[in-house]
Amino acid sequence: MSLTLYTYFRSSAAWRVRAALAWKGLDYQVVPVHLLREGGEQHAEAYRKLNPQELVPALCDGEHVITQSMAICEYLDETHPTPALMPSDPLGRARVRALAQAIACDIHPINNLRVLQHLKRNMGHSQEDTDNWYRHWITVGFASLENELARLGSKDFCYGGAMSLADICLVPQVFNARRFNVDLAPYPHIAQIDAHLMSLPTFADTQPSRQPDAE
Amino acid sequence: MSLTLYTYFRSSAAWRVRAALAWKGLDYQVVPVHLLREGGEQHAEAYRKLNPQELVPALCDGEHVITQSMAICEYLDETHPTPALMPSDPLGRARVRALAQAIACDIHPINNLRVLQHLKRNMGHSQEDTDNWYRHWITVGFASLENELARLGSKDFCYGGAMSLADICLVPQVFNARRFNVDLAPYPHIAQIDAHLMSLPTFADTQPSRQPDAE
Repeated sequence: MSLTLYTYFRSSAAWRVRAALAWKGLDYQVVPVHLLREGGEQHAEAYRKLNPQELVPALCDGEHVITQSMAICEYLDETHPTPALMPSDPLGRARVRALAQAIACDIHPINNLRVLQHLKRNMGHSQEDTDNWYRHWITVGFASLENELARLGSKDFCYGGAMSLADICLVPQVFNARRFNVDLAPYPHIAQIDAHLMSLPTFADTQPSRQPDAE
Repeated sequence: MSLTLYTYFRSSAAWRVRAALAWKGLDYQVVPVHLLREGGEQHAEAYRKLNPQELVPALCDGEHVITQSMAICEYLDETHPTPALMPSDPLGRARVRALAQAIACDIHPINNLRVLQHLKRNMGHSQEDTDNWYRHWITVGFASLENELARLGSKDFCYGGAMSLADICLVPQVFNARRFNVDLAPYPHIAQIDAHLMSLPTFADTQPSRQPDAE
């Protein structure tokens, strides 16, 4: 079945899916969706038909359109089980999903482009305000994530010494933290895991600067 | 194995887990965590040891603490498979997870208590501002969710004519929409599914007003 990914080079959520596809060794077609040009191509009629949420990514598997990056990653894991992205036991899966959701629910959406745009356009905030907002939610989220990773004794990967959906969510979030000059010194487990993961082709080859639509 | 739920009557995320437990017919002990009293009991040392994120819910299954409501619901579904909360096919599971995440990632965390408190305490916003903020993200999220449910032809349930994690996420979000006087007329699929679901004990018996810590 042919896979097509609607992506934007700088989108964290799209990077998650790019990394999952790379980890699985799956070929796919790339359709760039520019989130800023002409008011945002994600709001254009053609893309809205694919994804009424007007967010990237979306993955087409043949005729099926699948949205939401974590749902896409689990779908890829279930349809292409090797190499795995999820532990084989229910408790392990719960731990991985909880780590992934601590990032993908409780950090990233609050800092998403549309929220920053709303703060600026409709609530009278400056670029400095939204930069501080961005750093605030990363700092809050990373503090608890660091505690959790320390408690789990995590080293090269977030959970169980193996690649998982939690790693897929961590790396793009750390990339964003660096982009906004968040000091990572208070988060040694996060920094160590990120350094290891970024040494792997799964993340190195799928990072924003390596994308065909990179600017 | 004994189950203990750390919950707050008004928390949408805790309601999701209460509904999943009710759907599965599982007994559990309730430990209320008051999110406002004394600066928020979720920030107290004892609870932070359980959940470094300082958010409810958390579920203890014997010695294991599990956090993040969607992760908890899938854990309960995997450890107590009947009656099911997830479809049996990968595409169905992807659809259900995408619907659930469209609510639990892209609406709810942006409107969570800590975000509203940050807007008021640290960004100088009024109660009216945060009420408008709340309604804005529900309105944006419900518009695309309504399109998606219409496209799926959903009636009594969000997906596949059966109870799922998507329904578990929908009902508490609709409850919040009503609490903030969001007009549901533009969202007939959402309103119809919610009306049906609220007629079931799974949701009627687990709603905020029926909780031991309700005020």
